[in-house]
Amino acid sequence: MIAYLDNSATTKVCREAVSKMCDCMENNWGNPSSLHIMGINACNILEEARETLAKALGCQKKEIFFTSGGTEANNLAIKGAVSKNRRKGRKIIASSIEHPSVMNVMDMLERDGFEVVRLICDENARVRLEDLEREIDENTILVSLMAVNNEVGSIQPFDKVKSIINKKGSPALLHVDAVQAFGKIPLKPSAMSIDLMTVSSHKIHGPKGAGALYIKDGVRINPVTLGGEQEKQIRPGTEAMPAIAGFGEAIKQLPNINGQLKKMTTLRNDFLLKLEAVEGVCINSTEDALPYIVNISVPGLRSEPMLNLLSDMGVCVSSGSACAKGHKSYVLEALGLDNGRIDSALRISMSRYTTEEELDLFIKGIQTAQKVLRRR
Amino acid sequence: MIAYLDNSATTKVCREAVSKMCDCMENNWGNPSSLHIMGINACNILEEARETLAKALGCQKKEIFFTSGGTEANNLAIKGAVSKNRRKGRKIIASSIEHPSVMNVMDMLERDGFEVVRLICDENARVRLEDLEREIDENTILVSLMAVNNEVGSIQPFDKVKSIINKKGSPALLHVDAVQAFGKIPLKPSAMSIDLMTVSSHKIHGPKGAGALYIKDGVRINPVTLGGEQEKQIRPGTEAMPAIAGFGEAIKQLPNINGQLKKMTTLRNDFLLKLEAVEGVCINSTEDALPYIVNISVPGLRSEPMLNLLSDMGVCVSSGSACAKGHKSYVLEALGLDNGRIDSALRISMSRYTTEEELDLFIKGIQTAQKVLRRR
Repeated sequence: MIAYLDNSATTKVCREAVSKMCDCMENNWGNPSSLHIMGINACNILEEARETLAKALGCQKKEIFFTSGGTEANNLAIKGAVSKNRRKGRKIIASSIEHPSVMNVMDMLERDGFEVVRLICDENARVRLEDLEREIDENTILVSLMAVNNEVGSIQPFDKVKSIINKKGSPALLHVDAVQAFGKIPLKPSAMSIDLMTVSSHKIHGPKGAGALYIKDGVRINPVTLGGEQEKQIRPGTEAMPAIAGFGEAIKQLPNINGQLKKMTTLRNDFLLKLEAVEGVCINSTEDALPYIVNISVPGLRSEPMLNLLSDMGVCVSSGSACAKGHKSYVLEALGLDNGRIDSALRISMSRYTTEEELDLFIKGIQTAQKVLRRR
Repeated sequence: MIAYLDNSATTKVCREAVSKMCDCMENNWGNPSSLHIMGINACNILEEARETLAKALGCQKKEIFFTSGGTEANNLAIKGAVSKNRRKGRKIIASSIEHPSVMNVMDMLERDGFEVVRLICDENARVRLEDLEREIDENTILVSLMAVNNEVGSIQPFDKVKSIINKKGSPALLHVDAVQAFGKIPLKPSAMSIDLMTVSSHKIHGPKGAGALYIKDGVRINPVTLGGEQEKQIRPGTEAMPAIAGFGEAIKQLPNINGQLKKMTTLRNDFLLKLEAVEGVCINSTEDALPYIVNISVPGLRSEPMLNLLSDMGVCVSSGSACAKGHKSYVLEALGLDNGRIDSALRISMSRYTTEEELDLFIKGIQTAQKVLRRR
């Protein structure tokens, strides 16, 4: 048995998505831009996926732009918005715990002469609204705030940012990286006054290689990639049809968000109780975090040998972001954790398919690892 | 029966690629960056695809960088090379018949203050080496030349460019957009002194959503997308694993290039003979073009109604690039064709699966369309 508890890194593609993709490749493999029947059929599948995502987000079809994934969508949102609005101001605000695809763009913008403010977080790993209110001004052109942090699961007050922007008379657009939140908490960008929002397929049991950027009707950004006329020239290149079709199907399979959230909260709370009974384990995620993600530390036992040992036992977890490949977590650093906790951090991330048995296997794994590694 | 003759727009995904992708999604769906067993298995599939492509190109594995497709690879190559070498010079050279993902980047660079030279073509739709020799100078930092034109199939003298660059003492890198050439003509970038080369999966019976950029060992370019550490930070973002795995498998299924080229030449020559017998048809492709692509015109009959009528008869062709969605072809314009021929252009593009019966169906379709449309 494999206990796959790394669902924030990626998820298993659901059967329905695989089957949709096979149909797409075997029967409807045309280029959606082609004007003949094969193209029209492919275009219909593309537009069906767009419609599915639009419905899930309670937005219009024309507000959805498919990309190759979350990283591309984050880059497009931030660079596209800043390049379009660079004459309106020079200040950009983000949290200090964004994903590398946001953080590294912020660093680049800073090198390009923009003022980048990286807000620190409170003890619940959330940015403070009063900090946002103090920092947002008439010179601010973009606020980029993730909905859910990928390492500790903290839910950011992203739905309260736009009213502050408006109150301060700022021209800032609001971008929300919702890669870890989509399908897990209610996300209605128009009701939440979000201008740009990133979602990804492979975190919700769709295939890797597809994502999307929501661009609020009327909001203009510049493209990053240049080419043909696909996605209204905002994201050119032949659409990744099997992946986008699978993404659409995975969205259709999403359970009721609030119902699933309750189930996950129960599962997580039971898990936390069992974890707390294990000596030497510290919990880094707070109780109001997204229940799908639990970050812990086992001070004294470094993450990497721990991961390897757990993997040998069939338990798959990570030390943090998969994108960082074992580097020290800047997220945990930003949260003020000491080195002992950062170096021994483990992220357990669940999906709707996660079972109590898998979580029990993790706990057993930790206990075994403690014996083995402390002995060395 | 469908006569699919639009293989330069996209191709049917081969059975082996579909099957590999299903295995990838059902059994090996981990994130290649994850350190546990699911990640390692996924990483092995990723590296297997990289090895397959490297072998096909006669290059090293570390010279292959996967992207979401040809458009992204072209953008990355050109912007990445220019941004890295902007201090060495301000001149960039391309042909006047590049793909929109090259042309539009050239336009942007020109707006940014670079001097962009767009070389005109001779009567065979090829740039002239003497023009290249005249234009390449010490101030030139990049030459971007497609291997095979996507609309008329002309084969460019891309393998002779680097020796001119060297002879002129120019620091220019050579980028070759080989999207239409890969798998169809011999392409060994290191033997041909190519610095950067773009290939795409969905033109060779792989899935849409994967492509790659060959970057010669030692050549440095800047990334366009910023994020995690994937693809050595040259192209971050979780790798599009089902598509990349399918791309690798499609490469494995490629037939012997020269043998297939002979077969296609025979097929194309027979087709040309039959076409020439149809009154009112002009051939826009020359005989030394890639035999997979034949561009024709039927002056007096506009492309779009023709495409629709042919599509109704089960014949899928295009008026030019699928990316241009029916706009007037700038390629045919650059080749000096008159409006009558440009407005009535049709591209027939074949693959190794194309049969004589399909081509006959096209000819029948043209004859029927002539009767129907001329009557209107």
